Amino acid sequence: MSDQAEERIERMVELARAGDLRSFVREAHDYEAADLADVLGRLEESERVAVVRALPPELSSQALAEMPEDAHAEETLAALDPEQAAEIVEELEDDDAADILRELDAETKEHILQAVEDRIEVERLLRYDEETAGGRMTTHLVTVRDIATTTEALDEIRRQSEEVEEFYQVFVVDGQRRLVGVLPFKAVVVNRPDRMVREYMSEADIVVRPETDQEEVARLMARYNLPSVAVVDEGGRLLGRVTIDDVIDVVEAESTEDLLKFGGVSPDEELAAPWTDAVRSRLPWLTVNLLTAFLAGGVVYLFQETVQRTVALAVWMPVIAGMGGNAGTQALAVTVRRLALGLIPSDRLVRVVGKEVLVGITNGLAIGILVGIVASLLGEGPGLGMVVFLAMTGNLLVAGFAGAFIPVVLERFGVDPAIASSIFVTTFTDVCGFLLLLGLAGWLLF
Amino acid sequence: MSDQAEERIERMVELARAGDLRSFVREAHDYEAADLADVLGRLEESERVAVVRALPPELSSQALAEMPEDAHAEETLAALDPEQAAEIVEELEDDDAADILRELDAETKEHILQAVEDRIEVERLLRYDEETAGGRMTTHLVTVRDIATTTEALDEIRRQSEEVEEFYQVFVVDGQRRLVGVLPFKAVVVNRPDRMVREYMSEADIVVRPETDQEEVARLMARYNLPSVAVVDEGGRLLGRVTIDDVIDVVEAESTEDLLKFGGVSPDEELAAPWTDAVRSRLPWLTVNLLTAFLAGGVVYLFQETVQRTVALAVWMPVIAGMGGNAGTQALAVTVRRLALGLIPSDRLVRVVGKEVLVGITNGLAIGILVGIVASLLGEGPGLGMVVFLAMTGNLLVAGFAGAFIPVVLERFGVDPAIASSIFVTTFTDVCGFLLLLGLAGWLLF
Repeated sequence: MSDQAEERIERMVELARAGDLRSFVREAHDYEAADLADVLGRLEESERVAVVRALPPELSSQALAEMPEDAHAEETLAALDPEQAAEIVEELEDDDAADILRELDAETKEHILQAVEDRIEVERLLRYDEETAGGRMTTHLVTVRDIATTTEALDEIRRQSEEVEEFYQVFVVDGQRRLVGVLPFKAVVVNRPDRMVREYMSEADIVVRPETDQEEVARLMARYNLPSVAVVDEGGRLLGRVTIDDVIDVVEAESTEDLLKFGGVSPDEELAAPWTDAVRSRLPWLTVNLLTAFLAGGVVYLFQETVQRTVALAVWMPVIAGMGGNAGTQALAVTVRRLALGLIPSDRLVRVVGKEVLVGITNGLAIGILVGIVASLLGEGPGLGMVVFLAMTGNLLVAGFAGAFIPVVLERFGVDPAIASSIFVTTFTDVCGFLLLLGLAGWLLF
Repeated sequence: MSDQAEERIERMVELARAGDLRSFVREAHDYEAADLADVLGRLEESERVAVVRALPPELSSQALAEMPEDAHAEETLAALDPEQAAEIVEELEDDDAADILRELDAETKEHILQAVEDRIEVERLLRYDEETAGGRMTTHLVTVRDIATTTEALDEIRRQSEEVEEFYQVFVVDGQRRLVGVLPFKAVVVNRPDRMVREYMSEADIVVRPETDQEEVARLMARYNLPSVAVVDEGGRLLGRVTIDDVIDVVEAESTEDLLKFGGVSPDEELAAPWTDAVRSRLPWLTVNLLTAFLAGGVVYLFQETVQRTVALAVWMPVIAGMGGNAGTQALAVTVRRLALGLIPSDRLVRVVGKEVLVGITNGLAIGILVGIVASLLGEGPGLGMVVFLAMTGNLLVAGFAGAFIPVVLERFGVDPAIASSIFVTTFTDVCGFLLLLGLAGWLLF
């Protein structure tokens, strides 16, 4: 965020904290919804409720809709009296209204909905899962008949557009409201007044079903550069549209999820969650990790005698295992990302794994020679040097293999490779690293 | 991708491989540009060139523009004769043309540009850095004068839209082509024919400069739900526009970069790079890691005598260090993501670090008690159990602190926290883990 935007937001936060709601409301008209949402997000719950009470519903609704999910706009809504909450809900686009109401308990939701005039529309959206096209779509859209002329279409657009906040495409439907095409504005504007829409509309090649996952919707829109995509039922009837601004949020959220999963955090952990939630989200994963750490410790346990005889091996243990973990994570990051973007066709799996093995062995030789020399010079002589060299090279080869092979196999079995891979890969490199180092030492040094 | 799309793409790949270019070209008209780009991406270079030669330029240009950056569309272009390459460039949107030409060597670029009719426009875009608003913008846009009436504006839009492929907004300019507002279509359609545009246009609050970084542009458009954003020079004159479909690619690319950085891979490594490039990208990072691994090994070196006396400590070393690394990575993933999304105001740093310390010590107590009991039972008695318990709890506390504190400090000093943090965090947890385990053992056990 620019410093200027930051300053403007802070000024409003101070007005609200000082309780100067009159100035707050006067100034609020000059703010974009996203900025007002930031202001609300920085306030304490009681201050936020006071501000939302004071703002006219057309402003408070926009600001609440722009608040990130984990800022819990629904709690603010629940703190108002149902009539005022309903006024705000009525100002919202139906998809935004459904998103907020979905988070409320049944009783509060019912209380608010009773006072909402177009509750049927919102309730229909509430039936869809939040993370699907149905949950993301708005039912507000502009349609024209396929048999309309350009002039008739323009009249129709003019009439309907009063109900619709913003739109980038017009949908063409037949007499049963089945989607038959889409109409960019340009087509309406440049075509002769008496030509029929059907003659120059584009085909609606890409549509989604309400149950389509939101990530799939985002991928389609990005891939085919669509400003909005139609949602249709099994009979091809138009139900709603998902617009690009909903999708950008999905891509952002996905990016967060991917990084959290990669870091071994539950993707459901809200970034601003209280510490007790964070413990609940992370402890199970740490426990699983502990079991695999015991595996690595178990290998050392088997070789205790070897370590006792050459205690310098204990010095090299963290070096060999750590480097293997790092190299494995590198291969893993590249492979997980290639899988996520669909860049690995199924007939190239062997090539993908082969490449990472090649990278692993090359880096292994380079790093291995270096540590081998250091180990030789540090007192235990060329025997230990050779062991460290072989263990390092071998472990980086294993790291390349595991970093590419494990996510590919997990994806094959329908397991999300981002979340489960890193634990397998580091277990692999720890266990193999210790086996190589201590096993080779037992074999070559005594 | 759906199975059906996958099948369609494979069919075209087979046609091209079989050399049946006549069927290929006939079928190509039914394909979306993104799908054709996938087909091209799966072919060998020689097959790709043959296909592009055979396709009409309006199809080949779209397909080349949709190819991902690391598929090197420019190499295919360079393999054509300059006249045919120029025909393709002329069919491209100017920003796509600049993106491809930018990758070529000066001589080939000049050869092709000599045959391009509107070379001035493309050359102007070539002057901007690829990853800025200037590099991403197209100069093709629709403008109306502020003093036009609705009818005049519609005529103007009609006239200009023949030159512009797709557009979601009309820009309003004054006599010096300074941007004074934007006009959603809806406004043009619903307003009376004799009203002046100036009276109902929206203010152009959010604009960018050509040198603005593309990530900043993406963030602004996502934040304020803009379908396109105007690029203006220092005098406020309209230079071009960046559209939302360019920005989705940026967000996707950023997501890749973040995961690669987190995994310790250079964000410049192309996902499909040959293995030698991957070695070059990753070896430096592994070398840096080696130095920090030596630090951890050095701690063990100092305590060799302790390990010699209680070799069971060697069994617990990887467990303590590994768990610390995992817990630190968890805290790091959450903190890096919060920083990237601007969710940590500078007055809350202490709270953010405090929360992670609290999470760390809680998880540390839980895991610590568990491993302490296991260690007691595994033969060395309650003394070792106590040492392992304290070392584990302490190390997870350190992990929480390091995972939150290090990225926050790096960001303060203008260093990208995503790329440098993980190495510091795991060094921290390795070194502290060994110090705690071996130091406490030396103190408590003998």
